[in-house]
Amino acid sequence: MSDQIDTRTAWLSPDLLASVRANVPLVYVDAIPVRVDESGRVTQVGLLLRVASDGSISRMLVSGRVLYGERVRDALIRHLEKDLGPLALPKVPTNPAPFTIAEYFPDPDISGFVDPRHHAVSLAYVVPVSGDCTPTQQALDLAWFTPAEAASAKIAADMTGGQDRLLRLGLAHVGELP
Amino acid sequence: MSDQIDTRTAWLSPDLLASVRANVPLVYVDAIPVRVDESGRVTQVGLLLRVASDGSISRMLVSGRVLYGERVRDALIRHLEKDLGPLALPKVPTNPAPFTIAEYFPDPDISGFVDPRHHAVSLAYVVPVSGDCTPTQQALDLAWFTPAEAASAKIAADMTGGQDRLLRLGLAHVGELP
Amino acid sequence: MSDQIDTRTAWLSPDLLASVRANVPLVYVDAIPVRVDESGRVTQVGLLLRVASDGSISRMLVSGRVLYGERVRDALIRHLEKDLGPLALPKVPTNPAPFTIAEYFPDPDISGFVDPRHHAVSLAYVVPVSGDCTPTQQALDLAWFTPAEAASAKIAADMTGGQDRLLRLGLAHVGELP
Amino acid sequence: MSDQIDTRTAWLSPDLLASVRANVPLVYVDAIPVRVDESGRVTQVGLLLRVASDGSISRMLVSGRVLYGERVRDALIRHLEKDLGPLALPKVPTNPAPFTIAEYFPDPDISGFVDPRHHAVSLAYVVPVSGDCTPTQQALDLAWFTPAEAASAKIAADMTGGQDRLLRLGLAHVGELP
Repeated sequence: MSDQIDTRTAWLSPDLLASVRANVPLVYVDAIPVRVDESGRVTQVGLLLRVASDGSISRMLVSGRVLYGERVRDALIRHLEKDLGPLALPKVPTNPAPFTIAEYFPDPDISGFVDPRHHAVSLAYVVPVSGDCTPTQQALDLAWFTPAEAASAKIAADMTGGQDRLLRLGLAHVGELP
Repeated sequence: MSDQIDTRTAWLSPDLLASVRANVPLVYVDAIPVRVDESGRVTQVGLLLRVASDGSISRMLVSGRVLYGERVRDALIRHLEKDLGPLALPKVPTNPAPFTIAEYFPDPDISGFVDPRHHAVSLAYVVPVSGDCTPTQQALDLAWFTPAEAASAKIAADMTGGQDRLLRLGLAHVGELP
Repeated sequence: MSDQIDTRTAWLSPDLLASVRANVPLVYVDAIPVRVDESGRVTQVGLLLRVASDGSISRMLVSGRVLYGERVRDALIRHLEKDLGPLALPKVPTNPAPFTIAEYFPDPDISGFVDPRHHAVSLAYVVPVSGDCTPTQQALDLAWFTPAEAASAKIAADMTGGQDRLLRLGLAHVGELP
Repeated sequence: MSDQIDTRTAWLSPDLLASVRANVPLVYVDAIPVRVDESGRVTQVGLLLRVASDGSISRMLVSGRVLYGERVRDALIRHLEKDLGPLALPKVPTNPAPFTIAEYFPDPDISGFVDPRHHAVSLAYVVPVSGDCTPTQQALDLAWFTPAEAASAKIAADMTGGQDRLLRLGLAHVGELP
């Protein structure tokens, strides 16, 4: 959920960005990258290791802002390629509706999804990737887990902002929550 | 899609509102109010008659902005009660995911959903209402149509901004598109 | 998942029923009855206490067969009223698609959903009930739990056939899985 | 919707098949094969030309029965490969829930979905195919249409049993209904 790297938004001056964040919710996307078998069943979940918006080093989903003028599908592809590399070959679902929405607030008591920087409404998708994935830019690592591992308390302890819960909601959506 | 009437946003000065609209997509909700029979099947669809964002007098869905700090569920209820009156008794679905998203752009060629004022990502829901509905505020009328009427070319001709298509997507979602 | 009580199926002789069960998957519905607040958010989940198909006394969802000639919506209402009483006032969702499917097999290793009697494909729904619920017929009890309680290991230990997992998938669908 | 070709069901004697069909609803799948662009948006829809269950030569979806002991995912793959050939490379969605259900009855007045042979509850999916598709077995032809063509009255006139409506529901699900 880092947007320093949105080079296209450089023209959002710090003052304007602060104004926007204080006044309107932002549109975000969250993507859970997965590997699937030949019948479409999820076999592995990819999690990034990176610096979260709260400063911790955390396991994270692919996440980021939708830009002015950008389609949600294109934002998903952009963030997936930014985080997993240009050879990840993400297959965004044909259905444009997210499997759930995650409402991030600075206040942790409102929804359980937390972003200290702003209020964001994030559209969440499970996205199969079939190509080579390599962590890029600010990610320290990318690791693959079985659905059971991804849903475990051990992984949850390494995630922040409620993303562990969003991950479990995604596993449930694909029928792979233990 | 009129937000002059969001009294809570009076502190968004015209300058700031213009800045926001020129720089980030806004979070919106669209609601299709429906009457259902005792088995949950949609029997009627409610459409407002009001002045659209393009100045025309149009049949419209319930639509509006999600405010800073506001849950999507609460925005839905607020807009439904604002447009249908405080006795409409909307039953927002238990699933927080919209049935589809409508991406509104000033440019009509991007997605087919058009708002001349800004880029908005709208979360769309079908919402049963069981109470008394009376058009309020800026609405001139509220009329109820069968699903077949609502999906007809005649009604489509009275709608703008792609809302006729969003209405048909909603009818399809509930299995009532002819 | 008891169908002795489907009086309309009395004409399915034991021989024919055995033949059917050995040769084709049956169509089932599973319903998770819930209480919702005024914004549609799930606050409580109802679980029956009854004798399961494996003979154990278990916490169970509302579940049963779809009959020849019967609409899925009508089967849902019939089973909900059979188990929760005629005053439960179930509000079946407008969307006819289930939130997930549970594929029950005699062999526990195929899907994790188990029914020792047959292969059933069950369409699963979360159904708000707003009326008075009283356990009926073969149910020993009906109890209401918060989403967190319903998702707990304690409740899971009292459920069989994979219904605890189906319950968690339903809680995830409505955004209330902890 | 022809099942003479289910060689694995040869052991369903004509008498037993007739008994089953007269007494319980069957579990079916319907698949809408599509081509997608690199962002996952549907660009083309594949329709078979074949002899329908009512004897007409019709444009048809991929459709067929779920066998005893078979997972729904596997039934989808089996029917897609049976109708589109072994090189079609179908990508079944990660979400096991169908986008809608089509309830087929001999009586055309119940749901609008008609099968003169039996009551079937069909789970409907939109399935991207990325490989070479060649009509096989009983199909006379396979043709690809844009979403707008697929939703047209002209194509609807060539379809039977309500499959044109199911096709439009699928196009709506992926946001491509005109």
